[in-house]
Amino acid sequence: MTNEAHTSRPTLREKLYRVIFLSDTPAGKLFDICLLLVILASVAIVMMESVQSLQVRYSRLFNCLEWIFTILFTLEYILRIWCTPKPKRYITSFYGIVDLLCVIPSYVEFLLGGGHFLISIRILRLMRIFRIFKLVPFLHEGRQLMLALQRSRRKIAVFFFFIMLLTVVLGSIMYVIESGHNSGFTSIPVSIYWAVVTLTTVGYGDIAPVTPVGQAFSAIIMIMGYAIIAVPTGIVTAEMSRIHRAADTLKARECPGCHSKIEEEDALFCKYCGTHL
Amino acid sequence: MTNEAHTSRPTLREKLYRVIFLSDTPAGKLFDICLLLVILASVAIVMMESVQSLQVRYSRLFNCLEWIFTILFTLEYILRIWCTPKPKRYITSFYGIVDLLCVIPSYVEFLLGGGHFLISIRILRLMRIFRIFKLVPFLHEGRQLMLALQRSRRKIAVFFFFIMLLTVVLGSIMYVIESGHNSGFTSIPVSIYWAVVTLTTVGYGDIAPVTPVGQAFSAIIMIMGYAIIAVPTGIVTAEMSRIHRAADTLKARECPGCHSKIEEEDALFCKYCGTHL
Amino acid sequence: MTNEAHTSRPTLREKLYRVIFLSDTPAGKLFDICLLLVILASVAIVMMESVQSLQVRYSRLFNCLEWIFTILFTLEYILRIWCTPKPKRYITSFYGIVDLLCVIPSYVEFLLGGGHFLISIRILRLMRIFRIFKLVPFLHEGRQLMLALQRSRRKIAVFFFFIMLLTVVLGSIMYVIESGHNSGFTSIPVSIYWAVVTLTTVGYGDIAPVTPVGQAFSAIIMIMGYAIIAVPTGIVTAEMSRIHRAADTLKARECPGCHSKIEEEDALFCKYCGTHL
Amino acid sequence: MTNEAHTSRPTLREKLYRVIFLSDTPAGKLFDICLLLVILASVAIVMMESVQSLQVRYSRLFNCLEWIFTILFTLEYILRIWCTPKPKRYITSFYGIVDLLCVIPSYVEFLLGGGHFLISIRILRLMRIFRIFKLVPFLHEGRQLMLALQRSRRKIAVFFFFIMLLTVVLGSIMYVIESGHNSGFTSIPVSIYWAVVTLTTVGYGDIAPVTPVGQAFSAIIMIMGYAIIAVPTGIVTAEMSRIHRAADTLKARECPGCHSKIEEEDALFCKYCGTHL
Repeated sequence: MTNEAHTSRPTLREKLYRVIFLSDTPAGKLFDICLLLVILASVAIVMMESVQSLQVRYSRLFNCLEWIFTILFTLEYILRIWCTPKPKRYITSFYGIVDLLCVIPSYVEFLLGGGHFLISIRILRLMRIFRIFKLVPFLHEGRQLMLALQRSRRKIAVFFFFIMLLTVVLGSIMYVIESGHNSGFTSIPVSIYWAVVTLTTVGYGDIAPVTPVGQAFSAIIMIMGYAIIAVPTGIVTAEMSRIHRAADTLKARECPGCHSKIEEEDALFCKYCGTHL
Repeated sequence: MTNEAHTSRPTLREKLYRVIFLSDTPAGKLFDICLLLVILASVAIVMMESVQSLQVRYSRLFNCLEWIFTILFTLEYILRIWCTPKPKRYITSFYGIVDLLCVIPSYVEFLLGGGHFLISIRILRLMRIFRIFKLVPFLHEGRQLMLALQRSRRKIAVFFFFIMLLTVVLGSIMYVIESGHNSGFTSIPVSIYWAVVTLTTVGYGDIAPVTPVGQAFSAIIMIMGYAIIAVPTGIVTAEMSRIHRAADTLKARECPGCHSKIEEEDALFCKYCGTHL
Repeated sequence: MTNEAHTSRPTLREKLYRVIFLSDTPAGKLFDICLLLVILASVAIVMMESVQSLQVRYSRLFNCLEWIFTILFTLEYILRIWCTPKPKRYITSFYGIVDLLCVIPSYVEFLLGGGHFLISIRILRLMRIFRIFKLVPFLHEGRQLMLALQRSRRKIAVFFFFIMLLTVVLGSIMYVIESGHNSGFTSIPVSIYWAVVTLTTVGYGDIAPVTPVGQAFSAIIMIMGYAIIAVPTGIVTAEMSRIHRAADTLKARECPGCHSKIEEEDALFCKYCGTHL
Repeated sequence: MTNEAHTSRPTLREKLYRVIFLSDTPAGKLFDICLLLVILASVAIVMMESVQSLQVRYSRLFNCLEWIFTILFTLEYILRIWCTPKPKRYITSFYGIVDLLCVIPSYVEFLLGGGHFLISIRILRLMRIFRIFKLVPFLHEGRQLMLALQRSRRKIAVFFFFIMLLTVVLGSIMYVIESGHNSGFTSIPVSIYWAVVTLTTVGYGDIAPVTPVGQAFSAIIMIMGYAIIAVPTGIVTAEMSRIHRAADTLKARECPGCHSKIEEEDALFCKYCGTHL
């Protein structure tokens, strides 16, 4: 099959390609929605299986549903390989690997006998949930959010690097202060874990300072965390404000020739009268 | 009664309608304030009833007050139905249903004998508190806040959707890491609950990682949550800044004809001299 | 003594007034700093007295220091009354009452015999710490912060009102869900306390949901709290940004007559050449 | 050696100076990266040594590696003193002291016999991690972040001062409310620690209110903390927005002579045609 064939009357394979891979036709959209629902249902089953009480009672039903989902996903995987013009590219792509990984566990269990040691492999089925992310860039709001995050990416990376160093230093100091008096601060890595828990204001309380010096030092760390939390917020907010401002300035643009509103950000000529902007 | 009758001399029914449903007269405002106080008092009684020690000591007083409130609210409900020109619309409206639901529990208890199994129905009386929300849109500040929230509604929805997927993925990974070593991570749904508790920096500590790998992974989740919290803040702040900026630009507007200040945001003509703005 | 006397040669009383009440002279500034240090020392003593182990060992020293501070503060109080031209106004002012309340406990203890039931009265000495707040408005930074908070005051009040209603509703729902299954949710007020702890992302963990429904509902509350925290931040940030913007616009102002920079926000005429701005 | 010698053919000492102290040559950059890796490795060893189980098993390996790092750092220290033209300045500088402090512990342990009482001195080796901070100002993003933090420094200081006073007052009030009913609030300093934990929304739960009045008061503190967290965020965000705005205004600058873009913020003349901007 040559690529030019796509322009002539489509074969079944081409039709299927359109439905499964693209979502520009009603059938394609319907397929996407059905796939999403099946994925969500299979994810819900994996979740429920992990609950002891449900597993005991409905193990037969879960087994049954699992095989139905496995067969559906296997069929989908085979169809995708068959109808795509570039099977190799699909198989090695992120979604191709995910699609394969989420059907393998059931077959492995069937062949090796279902031991409970396979529970972590079964979780791989959850990876299918990433398919939903494919929808995000289609949403205008998602795109604007991502733009703001992308632009502040490097600043946030610098910030995280700083936070990491800070927690190492703070955790080590707390280890020196508390170790010996407190059953929680058993080693520097654990103290660093505590420093992260405290600095991010999560505060589990599984490890908490008991010495007066440790409590005073913790109080300082917390107030620092309070100020530090302002930094990523400031970064993202400032970036978002800038995007808004750019959008607002843009909205104010008006063609000097025909006074019509110009909505494309990158327009160089008015699309109604051709005046150079 | 035709709608035109309202313009002629008002009947008792029409007067009551004005007092009960509208708040543009002194009597209407007084009614609103009294109603609010009665609602707050009845809410306080429901709360106090739930406290064991108070319930034992003052059960007679509570019973008595409950019946007084029930009769007051029943009267109000009947009057509302009687005086509104469109009773059906009121009965099927949100506030109509709330008004009905908050008097039913007492009667149900009276008829079926007051078992303690009715405690959750009694809570329905608290729903009356929603009446207070009716005041919010009247406040200028509330309106501006709501405008900012409404405009960022879709962005926040996309963000929540993303958070949901993220907690499912993170919770599942933690389940694989911790289950078997930790009595807390008993199932995937519980692990997802833990992921939400951690990512939002709430951090109860009822479930906390104990394995080194789990603690390291948690630390990463917390720092992620730290950055992610910046996103809704950024959305709302940027929107609020934009509203402010618009208001500031507006304040600077001045009629070119008579130089009077123009305060209405959407004015197209000066309201003093009629000049086109 | 008439008010005009202040312009002629100052008496001792007038000199003392300048030193104690005003801080525009070196002596006045020195007095303010000494007073602050004595207050901080007395606050530190009250704090240390509350620590059991220190109280046992140094009770004699603490007693001694307390009397020294009490005598110092009594002297200051008498001097203030003596040297101020309007003693009544000082005595009835906020700081006058605080100054009195912080010396009374020691005398009460001396007269009634030092029982441990006076511990809460002794805390009153801490109120002197409010004197330090008098310094805040003198700081440029403090003023700008306060301006931002003051301007967003009404919006924040509306927001708090909303949070209060929300916690009542959420706490009541959680009470219905968890009571009976959980030893923590004993009454509606306690559940409301839990709702505040959760919504503000504090998360003590002294009360935590145990039923699956309760955990799911809590997860929703937490994510809500995540978004709601954005609102006060948005309010304050937007207000602060506006103040900055106004300051920046101002900085850009330039006298059209002599092209010198104009830094006073409210200047109507250039201070160098008198041109009307 | 005179300073002028640097311009003529460099000696070994001068070459080493360039490599070790500056990072403007490939060799200098390579040296910096190697140093960083060695520091990170030594920090990792210190951390792992603090873990009981690893210490027991690999104590011999750790000892060996420690001596290798100690010798490397000692060599580096000696080389730095030898090749710098101003040895005294280096020795008394912050990094000079850090470099010395991180080699001393090993020698002290060797001379005094390795008792476990030296564990806190060993931590000093972690201080080398500060060398990494030297990289931060080189990053454009780090510089912009630091500018924002530096400009908001005084506002944040005023804010922290206010928070400190507030926690003292709130902690003392809670001490009066809870002490006697609660095993947690043992003294005012501990109550202040609790107030910091609560106000910053960390919420360990090691100390939590149990009396109804204490819980109500805590709820108020939490909601206050909710609003107060907005202040540092507002400060940093507003400052960051201002920097962005300045950068955006700048980007819009264009030379009126040759229409080339002007990217330096402080340029007064176009660098291509010399036109006064």
